[in-house]
Amino acid sequence: MSLDDGAAPIETEALVVGAGPVGMFQVFQLGLQEIHAELVDALPHLGGQCAELYPDKPIYDIPGLPACTGAELVERLREQMAPMRPGLHLGQVVTRLQPRADGRFEVASSAGRRWLAGCVVIAGGVGAFEPRRLKLDGVEAHEGRQLHHALPPDEALAGRAVLVVGGEEPAIDTALRLSATPGAPGAPASVTLLHRRDALKADAQSLAEVARRRTDGRLQFIAGQPVGFHEAAGRLEQLVLVHGDTSTSPLAVDQVLVRLGLSPRLGAIADWGLALERKQLVVEPAGFETSQPGIHAVGDVNTYPGKKKLILCGFHEATLAAFAVAARLHPQRPQHLQYTTTSPRLQRLLGRAAPAAP
Amino acid sequence: MSLDDGAAPIETEALVVGAGPVGMFQVFQLGLQEIHAELVDALPHLGGQCAELYPDKPIYDIPGLPACTGAELVERLREQMAPMRPGLHLGQVVTRLQPRADGRFEVASSAGRRWLAGCVVIAGGVGAFEPRRLKLDGVEAHEGRQLHHALPPDEALAGRAVLVVGGEEPAIDTALRLSATPGAPGAPASVTLLHRRDALKADAQSLAEVARRRTDGRLQFIAGQPVGFHEAAGRLEQLVLVHGDTSTSPLAVDQVLVRLGLSPRLGAIADWGLALERKQLVVEPAGFETSQPGIHAVGDVNTYPGKKKLILCGFHEATLAAFAVAARLHPQRPQHLQYTTTSPRLQRLLGRAAPAAP
Repeated sequence: MSLDDGAAPIETEALVVGAGPVGMFQVFQLGLQEIHAELVDALPHLGGQCAELYPDKPIYDIPGLPACTGAELVERLREQMAPMRPGLHLGQVVTRLQPRADGRFEVASSAGRRWLAGCVVIAGGVGAFEPRRLKLDGVEAHEGRQLHHALPPDEALAGRAVLVVGGEEPAIDTALRLSATPGAPGAPASVTLLHRRDALKADAQSLAEVARRRTDGRLQFIAGQPVGFHEAAGRLEQLVLVHGDTSTSPLAVDQVLVRLGLSPRLGAIADWGLALERKQLVVEPAGFETSQPGIHAVGDVNTYPGKKKLILCGFHEATLAAFAVAARLHPQRPQHLQYTTTSPRLQRLLGRAAPAAP
Repeated sequence: MSLDDGAAPIETEALVVGAGPVGMFQVFQLGLQEIHAELVDALPHLGGQCAELYPDKPIYDIPGLPACTGAELVERLREQMAPMRPGLHLGQVVTRLQPRADGRFEVASSAGRRWLAGCVVIAGGVGAFEPRRLKLDGVEAHEGRQLHHALPPDEALAGRAVLVVGGEEPAIDTALRLSATPGAPGAPASVTLLHRRDALKADAQSLAEVARRRTDGRLQFIAGQPVGFHEAAGRLEQLVLVHGDTSTSPLAVDQVLVRLGLSPRLGAIADWGLALERKQLVVEPAGFETSQPGIHAVGDVNTYPGKKKLILCGFHEATLAAFAVAARLHPQRPQHLQYTTTSPRLQRLLGRAAPAAP
């Protein structure tokens, strides 16, 4: 859990938890306030829900973008926040958030990264996206040895009997990749796809390839739902499968890759002592501060009277939160509302200023 | 003042006052609530301040649009609201707004148009853009005959001595247009540009053309500031000009075109009995309703705790106002938050639905 536990924490003015569209725009708005931000997300890439759940589907209600896919919106926001040069910490969740006596916050992530932050903005959306788990009581004891929710390196699967659990793209892509060249050095001994029913969900090309490999024997398919397991001498020996509603059968297993996709979990955010209402962080609508001064929440993770979970509302919340963060961190600095269209200061921050005359 | 005073008023669910970016997005958001809107603006075109004050200058803080000119933003919003087919009423200001006993509002414009509206959303920005006036006590008596703040038809200027007042683009463009072909049928007898000092503001090409015409005699230029006028027999005879700080001189005039650009005026909005704070309409931040139930205010015209006069904040306000308007007009209709990415109903409203299977 601790890659750099011994290292000194990163000192930062602001830490933004969640790199979805609203978290990315939060970094941009903090930058316009001349506040540096570090950005953390559970996913290994920017964009949150937008990138994970609907990268190819159009969104029609972003103001000024009559139609825009999730992936396009993320790319546009990445470009917009780029001049602010945030510190990026992807593929890790924030596990600990602790107020200090000096008004700052100690924060730590699952990757062992630590920060000392003047303000924290939680742009956590519906939660951190984590792998959907195989839900069998006690099976987690085999995690990392025979059971894998994160993909192990290919070497660990060489010569092994691999069972891939899942019926959608993540499982199918993995099964196809591992079963491409059986017998080659480093390839698994066998690859089996396990899904609760004989109806897979992927693009037509992948489905045709699955059918071809089932015919030529490179890939096995089993329809069944794991409902239990058997161990012997500390090893995972069998999964117990139920077929349809009634019959069960054992399936001998060696390496089990669970590829059921990602699902969001509010996770540690719920444990930081912040006021919650139906699992949302309660904020005031002037600066979107939570019940803990110095911790703000923007986007789908928060609630206030009139709240609508729309991206464009999150953009507004991030903007007002940036002003509030600036007022807390720099109470002596005058707060004039300036416009990017006319302010040389803002244009300089954006890297858009005309070069100085020689 | 009354083009169609006798005609029946237009009955509409919502009337949006102000067709700047926020008013346009208001129409879009009302449309997503299946609420038809009529849209009124003082300017003869869509876009408000954005189109009038910075059409060619980039804006950098619209979320998802790293750089976008005012004109481009307006065009994008026009495309986005088009499926909602608002009634458009441009070039007129709302002069009267009167609540009725049945909860609806009687509204009338300077063009004599009348509406009966279930709800009104004021997206009035900094006010209605009106021509900057020549400020000489009593001179307004000559308006429409010898003095013009709105451009008269060219026929009215044929054979006349025309004085164009102003030193920026509106004045220069007008002076250049009228002085192009002296002596041609319908042309003025002479064209003179009057500005307080001999430094004009326009693009290089226009300035070069002004210089050329001053040399070849098609255009006269006078530096001076009007400080008074002389009349005789009900006619405007002379303007009194001051030069520098001291000397004055009379200038004989016939037709005076005042082309000093536009300036915003809150105008009648201030007289409708709505709660104001520093000339802003006070609203609550859940539905952006003013002190009068059924009348909402969004964008730069409103104020609430934390308010920032930013376009992106207006977009959020318009969205929440649309939900509030829907709740008032259709209290029986269930309000589910739906997403344009996934809702067939919203996609149908946007004209984006896939055609029905045959």
